[in-house]
Amino acid sequence: MPEGLPSGIFPPIPTPFDATGEIAADALRGNLKRWAGAPLAGCVVLGSNGESVHLDDAETLLVLETARDGIPADRWMLAGVGRASTRETIAWCRRAGDLGADAALLLPPSYYRGAMTPAALQAHYRAAADASPIPVVLYNMPACTGLDLDAETVIALSAHENIIGLKDSGGDVTKLGEIRQYADGEFAVLAGSAGFLLPALAVGASGGILALANIAPGPCTGIYDAARRGDWDAARAIQLRLIRANTAVTRGWGVPALKAAMEMVGLFGGAPRAPLAPLSDGRREELRRILAEAGILEDRWEETTER
Amino acid sequence: MPEGLPSGIFPPIPTPFDATGEIAADALRGNLKRWAGAPLAGCVVLGSNGESVHLDDAETLLVLETARDGIPADRWMLAGVGRASTRETIAWCRRAGDLGADAALLLPPSYYRGAMTPAALQAHYRAAADASPIPVVLYNMPACTGLDLDAETVIALSAHENIIGLKDSGGDVTKLGEIRQYADGEFAVLAGSAGFLLPALAVGASGGILALANIAPGPCTGIYDAARRGDWDAARAIQLRLIRANTAVTRGWGVPALKAAMEMVGLFGGAPRAPLAPLSDGRREELRRILAEAGILEDRWEETTER
Amino acid sequence: MPEGLPSGIFPPIPTPFDATGEIAADALRGNLKRWAGAPLAGCVVLGSNGESVHLDDAETLLVLETARDGIPADRWMLAGVGRASTRETIAWCRRAGDLGADAALLLPPSYYRGAMTPAALQAHYRAAADASPIPVVLYNMPACTGLDLDAETVIALSAHENIIGLKDSGGDVTKLGEIRQYADGEFAVLAGSAGFLLPALAVGASGGILALANIAPGPCTGIYDAARRGDWDAARAIQLRLIRANTAVTRGWGVPALKAAMEMVGLFGGAPRAPLAPLSDGRREELRRILAEAGILEDRWEETTER
Amino acid sequence: MPEGLPSGIFPPIPTPFDATGEIAADALRGNLKRWAGAPLAGCVVLGSNGESVHLDDAETLLVLETARDGIPADRWMLAGVGRASTRETIAWCRRAGDLGADAALLLPPSYYRGAMTPAALQAHYRAAADASPIPVVLYNMPACTGLDLDAETVIALSAHENIIGLKDSGGDVTKLGEIRQYADGEFAVLAGSAGFLLPALAVGASGGILALANIAPGPCTGIYDAARRGDWDAARAIQLRLIRANTAVTRGWGVPALKAAMEMVGLFGGAPRAPLAPLSDGRREELRRILAEAGILEDRWEETTER
Repeated sequence: MPEGLPSGIFPPIPTPFDATGEIAADALRGNLKRWAGAPLAGCVVLGSNGESVHLDDAETLLVLETARDGIPADRWMLAGVGRASTRETIAWCRRAGDLGADAALLLPPSYYRGAMTPAALQAHYRAAADASPIPVVLYNMPACTGLDLDAETVIALSAHENIIGLKDSGGDVTKLGEIRQYADGEFAVLAGSAGFLLPALAVGASGGILALANIAPGPCTGIYDAARRGDWDAARAIQLRLIRANTAVTRGWGVPALKAAMEMVGLFGGAPRAPLAPLSDGRREELRRILAEAGILEDRWEETTER
Repeated sequence: MPEGLPSGIFPPIPTPFDATGEIAADALRGNLKRWAGAPLAGCVVLGSNGESVHLDDAETLLVLETARDGIPADRWMLAGVGRASTRETIAWCRRAGDLGADAALLLPPSYYRGAMTPAALQAHYRAAADASPIPVVLYNMPACTGLDLDAETVIALSAHENIIGLKDSGGDVTKLGEIRQYADGEFAVLAGSAGFLLPALAVGASGGILALANIAPGPCTGIYDAARRGDWDAARAIQLRLIRANTAVTRGWGVPALKAAMEMVGLFGGAPRAPLAPLSDGRREELRRILAEAGILEDRWEETTER
Repeated sequence: MPEGLPSGIFPPIPTPFDATGEIAADALRGNLKRWAGAPLAGCVVLGSNGESVHLDDAETLLVLETARDGIPADRWMLAGVGRASTRETIAWCRRAGDLGADAALLLPPSYYRGAMTPAALQAHYRAAADASPIPVVLYNMPACTGLDLDAETVIALSAHENIIGLKDSGGDVTKLGEIRQYADGEFAVLAGSAGFLLPALAVGASGGILALANIAPGPCTGIYDAARRGDWDAARAIQLRLIRANTAVTRGWGVPALKAAMEMVGLFGGAPRAPLAPLSDGRREELRRILAEAGILEDRWEETTER
Repeated sequence: MPEGLPSGIFPPIPTPFDATGEIAADALRGNLKRWAGAPLAGCVVLGSNGESVHLDDAETLLVLETARDGIPADRWMLAGVGRASTRETIAWCRRAGDLGADAALLLPPSYYRGAMTPAALQAHYRAAADASPIPVVLYNMPACTGLDLDAETVIALSAHENIIGLKDSGGDVTKLGEIRQYADGEFAVLAGSAGFLLPALAVGASGGILALANIAPGPCTGIYDAARRGDWDAARAIQLRLIRANTAVTRGWGVPALKAAMEMVGLFGGAPRAPLAPLSDGRREELRRILAEAGILEDRWEETTER
């Protein structure tokens, strides 16, 4: 198990399905082997890109087991196991821990969002963290949950010894700065999208969980490494070059585009489960062009950090 | 099984939990017996007030079975079994049908809401309706899903022979009017909240699925009956008297308040599951006052329609 | 000056511009003459459809003068003279009163919407109503202001003796019902769009300020009259038939469509001021088709109430 | 007149009012003299903090004249003169130019926001820039306008030779990065809030228009200078220290807090115009504490850049 807090670059890996719509465990193994050769700090399993909400319980367990097997032991495996109820969340933190996950990445409950006051959210996360055998990472994803964890809530929760970090996909870097300044010292702030990785690092983030890192681990890690060595001009050049490619596989066209892009770099992609639809042929060509412009299709993608 | 389309008043019943947090099946049976004596057209099981998202699969089955047993055979049982994936939605429509539900009430998938275009939603609902052994009722609930089914989508889906209606909790009565005017003739529009029942009836709704009907079936049915017999002044008087009581148990304080109110009228209420918190004592007193002002606590609530 | 509270149907009249973009006062006079022959309770001048925000001070005065001259003395002239500051709002209420307006229709200040708490809004409206020589009508228009007056605020303000009503374009009929139930007795609730006129009447509104009434005063008044005489089926039939025509000239295509529609029924329409653009030819044809389907183009539009 | 594009740090200066609510021109002169001694690149007059929407035409002219007189000739004077109509916007660009402003800062028209498509906004800004005698800076302020200029629109407009930059207060740094990468080379991106100044600089912004710079020009310029010389650790330390002070005088408590803070550092503050209310005594003490913690009250604030 990795030591310390999560830092560096993590891909939130998609769950592959075969032509009949069943989980393609072999394809997942193949993908994991390639990511294992890339300069990554670990993987997030069953995040938003993992289509967690499309899986039943047995499938969820299968993906967790397969992932742990394929993620090197010295790298982080973060498992997206947040559920709508506190009791189910706890149950799944335990299962994830049993299966070797290093941390649980927990979305806030959001169905009854009108009732999810800061106090309710804090009580939920504290109860989960108290009971979870593995550390908890908060997961703010307003575009999917319709609920935005505020700075006060995150700062208050950072003091819990079993809550070790935040993945923020909202992109409010003012908030990330405030959290960095006032959160507990033992708390990692991770950017949730490659679109604002460098701005997040500028205010003290320790890395990112980035859909784009599935297909461009070298450039993503390149931004991180350049910023760490103080070469902000180099970091900016990579950052700006990647923005449209990142948008295409995230808030633009989402999981279907990410899966299509994976195929373009030699990974298994496949189709998402309905109601998500496979990327249309027209968009696929546009995506290929965008990735080419970003330099993502050019070379052997995984082996080295871009400098 | 009831004939024709759903019409009249339906309570979306809460799922009772005992002091240890487990499903209280006996309490559910007791509640159902009382609703069976009230002037209601049936019950919705596992809607938003049923805390469907807080239940695991086995619990979901238990609630469906228990409900079918307690709902009179000549009344509707609508089962809230929408899921995030089309395949899970279909699987649950089948289970609900096997257990005797008369229709499946289906929330739209909403996690990847950015991808839920009208085309994607229509494909999802058509696939579900094609495969479901029981009719489908669309369920628009923007406050919880962050996604608002538009008129065009609903009108297009109304032509499907196995899609028989809409429960709308959004409250845009202009939209309800447009749907009523342009939807298929064999399609029921049901108000999703007692707050706008009469306005919805004014534009042609055929009834309502109303949280308030759990605790005030007589007055709710009274609005419906008065409007049907053309006595809009009487209907308005009841409607206006109920608005604040309805707000308290819906968008105001939600499920915890509805459960507390149930106790005040002699039903089993109990606590919701976390992260929902039981109503505080202060709000409980305020709620009692609001219900009293609305005349809900005054008499034997269930036996007759208010005139 | 009309007695009592405003009731019945009012068009919020557009401001006509000539080919050079200047105010076409003669065209306005011609339009007013036609509306004077229609079954209307008065006119709203310089509302959202009047492009008030596009006029300078001198133009504003010219429109007010011209309107008062053309609106029969026994009909209401409501003047949209809300401004961003309390002091300018008061100054314009006085000017409108001097020019013969019967009431001031006041949008809430909304630029600093984050600061527009209920207390701030109440203080603003009370100060305006205290100083205004003519009664004040509140104007809730969230689609344009990004700010939604809540029920508590409106109910509290209804007690002010110089605040006599609300035009609500938000369409939340639950809120309208609550206001009707708890507002001061001497307070008029007016629907702000023909899309929900009948639902608003169902919960006690006393009329409507309706863009559609500019081009279809007969049918709009027909809904009102039918509901007042208790013929809700007749009212519903007209209401449902008008919905898409109303949408086209309001939240669909807005002022440019209303002006185009006015030309189709023989009124002066003309172009809006930039940045609003004239309706495209394609939409113009679609609009004509929609109005024809709603029966608006068929006959001499203004003379009689539809029954 | 300054050469090149705007860069560095600019305060958007408040408009001072005296005890009777009239413009306090002498107080404005006094404030301008102090800012002239601070390390600033110029001033923005009549932005959101200048309460432009609270002024009548004569007052607007007075503020512009007074400001030009007090801003050193070699520093930028940007004038906030956007109006709801294109023709009024053009008229005010001309007036601002006549009075010596170096550029016009133009909010998008937003009252008819439903009609403000990218095409409509581009047509508006192009028409204004074509006619304006002084360069135009786009002003994105979604919190006040309810309208968010998108990257495509800004990039397209950047090609216009008389459109020289963007002030963005929305804080979406992914968008700022995309604009920086794809906009015309002769186009300045300016952060609109000190909360995300450093993140914006990280993706290539050339400075900021910052409410906080009214009261803390040294620290704000310190972030800018440190980033320019490559000392991102120093820049980050200042950035994080300032976040809560910035929030207090911007999206937290707004103009009333900024005016109160100005008094705490020896500038003239005074009250805002209603409906904005002066800061309460309780918040004033809390503000003083927040500013003290940020080190803003400690020393002679204006003379040197913080390092």
